[in-house]
Amino acid sequence: MRIVVIGFQSAGLTAAATARLYNRDAEITVIERRSYATYHPCGLPFVIGGEVRELGDLVETAPRLHGVNVRLGVEAKAIDVGEKMVEVLDLKTNREERIPYDKLILATGSVALRPKISGIDLDNIFSLRTIEDGERILAALPGANKAVVVGAGPIGVETASALKERGLDVALVEMLPSILPGMLDPDMAEIVAERLVKSGVRVICSKAVKELRGEGKVSSVVLDGEEIPADLVIMAIGVKPEVELAVKAGLSLGPTKMIAVDDHLRTSNPDIYAIGDCAEARCLITGRPVRSQLATTAIRMGRVAGINAAGGDEIFDGVLNAVVTMAGGLEVASVGLTPTAAKEAGIETVSARVRCLSKPHYFAGAEPVTIRLVAERKEQRLLGGQFIGTGAAERANRLALAIRKGMTTKELSKVDYCYAPPVSDSIDPLVVAAEALLRRR
Amino acid sequence: MRIVVIGFQSAGLTAAATARLYNRDAEITVIERRSYATYHPCGLPFVIGGEVRELGDLVETAPRLHGVNVRLGVEAKAIDVGEKMVEVLDLKTNREERIPYDKLILATGSVALRPKISGIDLDNIFSLRTIEDGERILAALPGANKAVVVGAGPIGVETASALKERGLDVALVEMLPSILPGMLDPDMAEIVAERLVKSGVRVICSKAVKELRGEGKVSSVVLDGEEIPADLVIMAIGVKPEVELAVKAGLSLGPTKMIAVDDHLRTSNPDIYAIGDCAEARCLITGRPVRSQLATTAIRMGRVAGINAAGGDEIFDGVLNAVVTMAGGLEVASVGLTPTAAKEAGIETVSARVRCLSKPHYFAGAEPVTIRLVAERKEQRLLGGQFIGTGAAERANRLALAIRKGMTTKELSKVDYCYAPPVSDSIDPLVVAAEALLRRR
Repeated sequence: MRIVVIGFQSAGLTAAATARLYNRDAEITVIERRSYATYHPCGLPFVIGGEVRELGDLVETAPRLHGVNVRLGVEAKAIDVGEKMVEVLDLKTNREERIPYDKLILATGSVALRPKISGIDLDNIFSLRTIEDGERILAALPGANKAVVVGAGPIGVETASALKERGLDVALVEMLPSILPGMLDPDMAEIVAERLVKSGVRVICSKAVKELRGEGKVSSVVLDGEEIPADLVIMAIGVKPEVELAVKAGLSLGPTKMIAVDDHLRTSNPDIYAIGDCAEARCLITGRPVRSQLATTAIRMGRVAGINAAGGDEIFDGVLNAVVTMAGGLEVASVGLTPTAAKEAGIETVSARVRCLSKPHYFAGAEPVTIRLVAERKEQRLLGGQFIGTGAAERANRLALAIRKGMTTKELSKVDYCYAPPVSDSIDPLVVAAEALLRRR
Repeated sequence: MRIVVIGFQSAGLTAAATARLYNRDAEITVIERRSYATYHPCGLPFVIGGEVRELGDLVETAPRLHGVNVRLGVEAKAIDVGEKMVEVLDLKTNREERIPYDKLILATGSVALRPKISGIDLDNIFSLRTIEDGERILAALPGANKAVVVGAGPIGVETASALKERGLDVALVEMLPSILPGMLDPDMAEIVAERLVKSGVRVICSKAVKELRGEGKVSSVVLDGEEIPADLVIMAIGVKPEVELAVKAGLSLGPTKMIAVDDHLRTSNPDIYAIGDCAEARCLITGRPVRSQLATTAIRMGRVAGINAAGGDEIFDGVLNAVVTMAGGLEVASVGLTPTAAKEAGIETVSARVRCLSKPHYFAGAEPVTIRLVAERKEQRLLGGQFIGTGAAERANRLALAIRKGMTTKELSKVDYCYAPPVSDSIDPLVVAAEALLRRR
């Protein structure tokens, strides 16, 4: 049994490691174009901010892969699906080679999107996706006073906060009407935007970037009716799935233009799996194809494909897209459907927003916690939640589990929870939110 | 409809407030012996430690009880179940009175246990249960250098930590072989004990207190083979349910010697409910009667009884006894059954213990997180968990939900979760624990 994995990020690493655990005899090869091992792109903003000491810390030095043949600096050029061979080019030696497989796992990932606007090729316009991106930004920082971050998703928000911490003037530009779109409703996003503004970041919504100006180096970003001076610009407008290899091999794409997979993560070719940022996911609630493109999804998919490729029978049942980000020191998380996303899927919702405290009012360090809970209107089956404040991530994790198990608001209002004043208030915020939502009947 | 509630702590307050919400017309009276409103006994250790500024902060100044007749300083002396009257004594005026009820809710709570040992009536031997206890301890602190805390449950551990923070020499004495018994297995308890020792608390297990010595004031605590000097002693050996009124009224007690209730929280008299620390709870997993005596259980029971007394039909399905405590700055939580408790209930278990990090290893402030996960052996249905480190409480809350929904270890290993380096590592600790447990098959 020969298993070949293309791509050595979270998805590929997890698939290879899991296949190794599951099947002691399989011959497992990982092919990776990069010259370095798995790294953690989500850590990049924090190298700028200083919470991570250096870029090299983000690269895994000892991946858990005994007996896996990891080939770095080797690019997969094509898949011969008839002969079951991967055609590769060793970038160091320039030698071509054909590597046979019984099962192939595509974990080709994604690349940062670059908008096709005037001036995009000026110097000091960066993405924040690879270690090399990080090196370029760190090199540009000493001479820079003014930064513009384009795109207010999690990475954009974290990068804007990090640049502010480094002492730059920062503007965060979002084309949509509110920041963290997809994660938060506008009223929740407003709370986060206020915190960013308070920390000194200028937040500009509902404005698209028209043009980037400068001579050699970028000097300004042009929006509708405004020109913002910029010594450096970071484009954080999202990622594009790497599907070229799959398309060339004749594999089907899904409606999201990602590689289509079934519930075993098999592509249209039953000997080829696709996982991670290049593979289409399915919403656990609606069953619809969605773009997930999270490290956690990559890892969860990697396990399933690793087991299946190694001879197992494991189902990947879908995603709830649990996401957390830090914005100006504020923990912000979401999971499941926003009311807007539910409406698009034809689901009528009720929702409630509550504001509690992280600890009892009488305890030192009590902070506000804001929660929006969303349920389907008829039976109040839980659909999603948005969380701001300490504990946001773990509350989203708990709600993920509740949604997965089909819980109703009523059931959630009656669960067991812990209480001690240094840690929590006597009524759990998620229970407070469930009770508020119940009163919306 | 006349609803009378006896007791104005978490259970009674919640029942009255919930009945009020549920039934706008009922006449609701709360009878409370104390002269002050609901207070938060779990906050008492932190007044000693300084995280709560003063004792008065623990008393609710504005309970949410519009249109409820709260009678403080009034003691219930007897229940006339035939006439449906509560016989009360106004402690301020010394006047007796009979208060009629249609539905009666007993929320009489519990009192601190005082062991019957020689010297127990010496001065400077305290419980830590009421505001008055807190006043006495605060008054004794200025002259005290050496403290002994007897009982290493959550309150004992928190009190020992608090006294240490106040600069006293502290010994924590536990009769059982390890601290936090009931919450933690001995190997997990050892991690917490080490932290306490590191913070300067002397931890003594497997030793009972034989005698308290002193003249007028306590001066030492005598254990097997050792005498420990003490300027003050805090007895934190647990609480005793207040069931006298119920027994006098002929209500049945359960096997735990608490007031027996059905799944609607009705006592053996269908017009009388019992909730909180005086009422027997049922383990959600085994169905067996258990002592819960947590503020969270009191609140959860209060809601159900409040609705039922007011004419509703609500079930209280049981407890998982989710508990959190802080020990020397370490967050410690547990939920469900320990392997020992499961064995007592005739359930064969498998368990796994893992050590992860609260954040990625490369991120500033990453701390160890230790988890024990317990499942039933055959199908690996989840039974319980023990958690040490940041996020312990919220992880216990999540596991509570998983246990409640009958999840297996396998299912838990596949759930969605959030990840961002400032908040969590890329593989959720609960998932790491589930995977480790799966390998125990």
